[in-house]
Amino acid sequence: MAVALTLSELAEKLGLTLPAGANGARVLQAVRPLDVAGADDLSFLDNEKYRDQAKATKAAAVLVREADAALLPAGCIPLVVPQPYMAFARALMVMYPAAKVVPGISEFAVVSAKAMIDPTARIEPYAVIYAGAKIGAGAHIGAHCVVGEGVQIGAGTVLFSHATVMKAVVGERCVIHSGVRIGQDGFGFAAHNDVIIKIPQVGSVRIGNEVEIGANSTIDCAALGETVIEDGVKIDNQVQIAHNVQIGKHSRIVAQVGVAGSSKLGQFSLIGGQSGIAGHVTLADRVMVAARSGVIKSVENVSAVVAGFPAVDIQEWRRAMGALSMLGRRKVKAGNSEAAAAGGPVAKEIEVHPASPFAAESFK
Amino acid sequence: MAVALTLSELAEKLGLTLPAGANGARVLQAVRPLDVAGADDLSFLDNEKYRDQAKATKAAAVLVREADAALLPAGCIPLVVPQPYMAFARALMVMYPAAKVVPGISEFAVVSAKAMIDPTARIEPYAVIYAGAKIGAGAHIGAHCVVGEGVQIGAGTVLFSHATVMKAVVGERCVIHSGVRIGQDGFGFAAHNDVIIKIPQVGSVRIGNEVEIGANSTIDCAALGETVIEDGVKIDNQVQIAHNVQIGKHSRIVAQVGVAGSSKLGQFSLIGGQSGIAGHVTLADRVMVAARSGVIKSVENVSAVVAGFPAVDIQEWRRAMGALSMLGRRKVKAGNSEAAAAGGPVAKEIEVHPASPFAAESFK
Amino acid sequence: MAVALTLSELAEKLGLTLPAGANGARVLQAVRPLDVAGADDLSFLDNEKYRDQAKATKAAAVLVREADAALLPAGCIPLVVPQPYMAFARALMVMYPAAKVVPGISEFAVVSAKAMIDPTARIEPYAVIYAGAKIGAGAHIGAHCVVGEGVQIGAGTVLFSHATVMKAVVGERCVIHSGVRIGQDGFGFAAHNDVIIKIPQVGSVRIGNEVEIGANSTIDCAALGETVIEDGVKIDNQVQIAHNVQIGKHSRIVAQVGVAGSSKLGQFSLIGGQSGIAGHVTLADRVMVAARSGVIKSVENVSAVVAGFPAVDIQEWRRAMGALSMLGRRKVKAGNSEAAAAGGPVAKEIEVHPASPFAAESFK
Repeated sequence: MAVALTLSELAEKLGLTLPAGANGARVLQAVRPLDVAGADDLSFLDNEKYRDQAKATKAAAVLVREADAALLPAGCIPLVVPQPYMAFARALMVMYPAAKVVPGISEFAVVSAKAMIDPTARIEPYAVIYAGAKIGAGAHIGAHCVVGEGVQIGAGTVLFSHATVMKAVVGERCVIHSGVRIGQDGFGFAAHNDVIIKIPQVGSVRIGNEVEIGANSTIDCAALGETVIEDGVKIDNQVQIAHNVQIGKHSRIVAQVGVAGSSKLGQFSLIGGQSGIAGHVTLADRVMVAARSGVIKSVENVSAVVAGFPAVDIQEWRRAMGALSMLGRRKVKAGNSEAAAAGGPVAKEIEVHPASPFAAESFK
Repeated sequence: MAVALTLSELAEKLGLTLPAGANGARVLQAVRPLDVAGADDLSFLDNEKYRDQAKATKAAAVLVREADAALLPAGCIPLVVPQPYMAFARALMVMYPAAKVVPGISEFAVVSAKAMIDPTARIEPYAVIYAGAKIGAGAHIGAHCVVGEGVQIGAGTVLFSHATVMKAVVGERCVIHSGVRIGQDGFGFAAHNDVIIKIPQVGSVRIGNEVEIGANSTIDCAALGETVIEDGVKIDNQVQIAHNVQIGKHSRIVAQVGVAGSSKLGQFSLIGGQSGIAGHVTLADRVMVAARSGVIKSVENVSAVVAGFPAVDIQEWRRAMGALSMLGRRKVKAGNSEAAAAGGPVAKEIEVHPASPFAAESFK
Repeated sequence: MAVALTLSELAEKLGLTLPAGANGARVLQAVRPLDVAGADDLSFLDNEKYRDQAKATKAAAVLVREADAALLPAGCIPLVVPQPYMAFARALMVMYPAAKVVPGISEFAVVSAKAMIDPTARIEPYAVIYAGAKIGAGAHIGAHCVVGEGVQIGAGTVLFSHATVMKAVVGERCVIHSGVRIGQDGFGFAAHNDVIIKIPQVGSVRIGNEVEIGANSTIDCAALGETVIEDGVKIDNQVQIAHNVQIGKHSRIVAQVGVAGSSKLGQFSLIGGQSGIAGHVTLADRVMVAARSGVIKSVENVSAVVAGFPAVDIQEWRRAMGALSMLGRRKVKAGNSEAAAAGGPVAKEIEVHPASPFAAESFK
């Protein structure tokens, strides 16, 4: 599947310099992890826990920080870069280019005569495009996708099979994975004296450019106004975004998170997997929410890191968890009043409780 | 998208009285929030935190409680109602009526000759209706929906695109959103000495009238007998209802909740987002489960409010969380035996810990 | 729906002996729970909490342990087996056999001329099979399923409607439920100085034999290499399996669980509902994770049972929850220094706190 290229070609595309004496004509066939890479493969070393693997790798060449280059065995060519993980991503893009979109509308699709399909777009079998929809240049609408009345899909955007989009404007170069649901009704009911009535959800969804949305995630339309996903937001699988939510630019949201109605996340937010954000709260820019947290009030400090439920500063949460852990470990006998009058040892041990290997992205 | 109507027309449809001197001929074009409403818009004031917005609104008229009517600026017409949020919902229904279902079967649908389709129903492209299925009057079967063998869909029920229904009877006037899965096998295996065998799931699903089920939710068929969703139940997105569960009338279940096998929820239950109900438990009528709770035993008291995991009375949970929070905040030095012998200050502060802004619906 | 058979026929198929005097010609029409079974029905008694129902059952015959046989009323035939629940499962298989797959390709499916479809396979309407895909003998591809380029579906495997499979090899006799997404991109981004770039996900998914995957679950392809689901794994609804995860043979994963990238579960794992496993951790064989737990570090002990978040040994977690519960129950007045200096009563009560009715499968 990979496109073979020479070391010189790779170096040129990544803007890096080959070490003296390296054979620029050597051909790379694939990118593989350090432990399985062979004589035709490129690999990379970023995370220090793979240093031992680096020492034994059989890879032809390895993207590596300058400080780590000496770890590589003789014959393995170090490709020195400041950020090996970033360079690895770029190398993958070069060696595994995305398939070009071949324009055309499948004869097995149903496209309204009142829809506007750019001639360079591709529509796969059994897609259904309703009246007033607009599909941009080079967009790819996968098999069985439904694009509702008046929906706009921007240039270069890919909808994988089985995505459905209603009442929405989707920007350019987005990637919408299979089973994503965009623009259905939010969950809104007014209740009084056992009478429950549905609040018609008459708003819409606006999605910026270069947004990615993972498989089977759901983004509801606003009750009034718009649910907004700003440019560059990356959403993992099975995430729920309720009506009237706003997600700030370049935020990343890991799998199975739920964001309740009308909440606003700042730019560059990072929300760990399985977390929940309650309704009507606001998070400042660059807030990190640890995995499995529940945020029930606004977070005003830029770059705050919160954890737990109800979510608090992550250091505070760690101390509380440490204390709780101590309570769980104590085996106090009925008569042991010294240990029982404790608190002391508990509190003391909290301070030395090692920071858990826990981070906002640990569930991604 | 809105249907324009005069203030007099609106007043008549909502059964309210215009204030003396109000111009009944004034035309309303849309419903908008207080802060963005303009001279042709209707708005509403229900939640007291929007009182400041009410004082500055430019809306033509505002649905408002009698006590709040004086807040509105001169020129803004107060429409006094006892429950502004309920009136808002009704106004939306009037001004944004649901599209009428146009009868007909798409030429791009596959409908078994042995299915019974009411002539007033609508079947969208690529729907598949198997033998013995019965589609009621005015029902709308969206694009790509699958209606399995012998399934019944009641009159006036809407299946949005990509819903699949097997082994089920669905009542009247229900709304089933995109990607909902109804009637697939429950998760049942018998295990003994490392032999794991599947328990055939031979039951079915029964869904009452006026039930709403959110996008990508899943409702499994019973192992034996029926999984039951009673009349008026409202289920949000990505909710999991396991085999043999029973959900009592008019209950509301917020997004990403899971209800495990054979559990029974009473009428008018309210289950906060991301909560879990363990298997084989029973909840009394009108129980509220706070968001992100885990209920592992039956709740016998009508109208009980529970929270946490394992879920307990919400007041108890708040005190426990307050205590835990105090443990997290203490910075005890090794030699500080007074604070260390604590417990006291912790326990004391629990009492004054303000009630968290936390409610069963906070994750909706 | 059931296939009627005589008591003798059932006994033969299950390899059990009828009690002396039992009428082997008696016909069984269905399998029903003890409390609703009638004179033509088979039932079973496994869980002791149904002993009272057994005493009053009207079933014709009951699968029962030898020690419980005497509970049954006169006229009810005891069918003595060592494992009634296993025998119940086998009886269901006999009396409710799965429908035979009728070979054939729907005229309303799109099948690439470059796909290989075994002549005994069945392809339902609107399925799309891309070039290079291979569908094995007796496989059933449901309505609207998408089988991507080069994907292999093993013999006897069933894809229910609306499943999508890309970049994957799926084994034999698997059951893939509606809305399952297999092989889409994992969630991988490299970030540095506010530049976020997507890491092309160029790996694949390998699924063993006799795997079951619940509705709307998602299994991402590997970044490099393979995401692996080994033989006999059973996955419930709405489970998220991230890129490069490995799930060991015969593991069971209850609904709404998330397993983050590159983690490895051993054989015969049992993961309770709504739990999360952080990325890059390894679980030993036969580990049980209680429902709603969050595992953030590796579990090295075979057969360990962990609970809570961060997950710890379940006994430790129970003690901690007991202590926390006590903190929540204490009503300490400001001046009550005795109770306040507590800790003692708390710790003491932890020891007698009854084990919660909580187990890894309690949310299934």
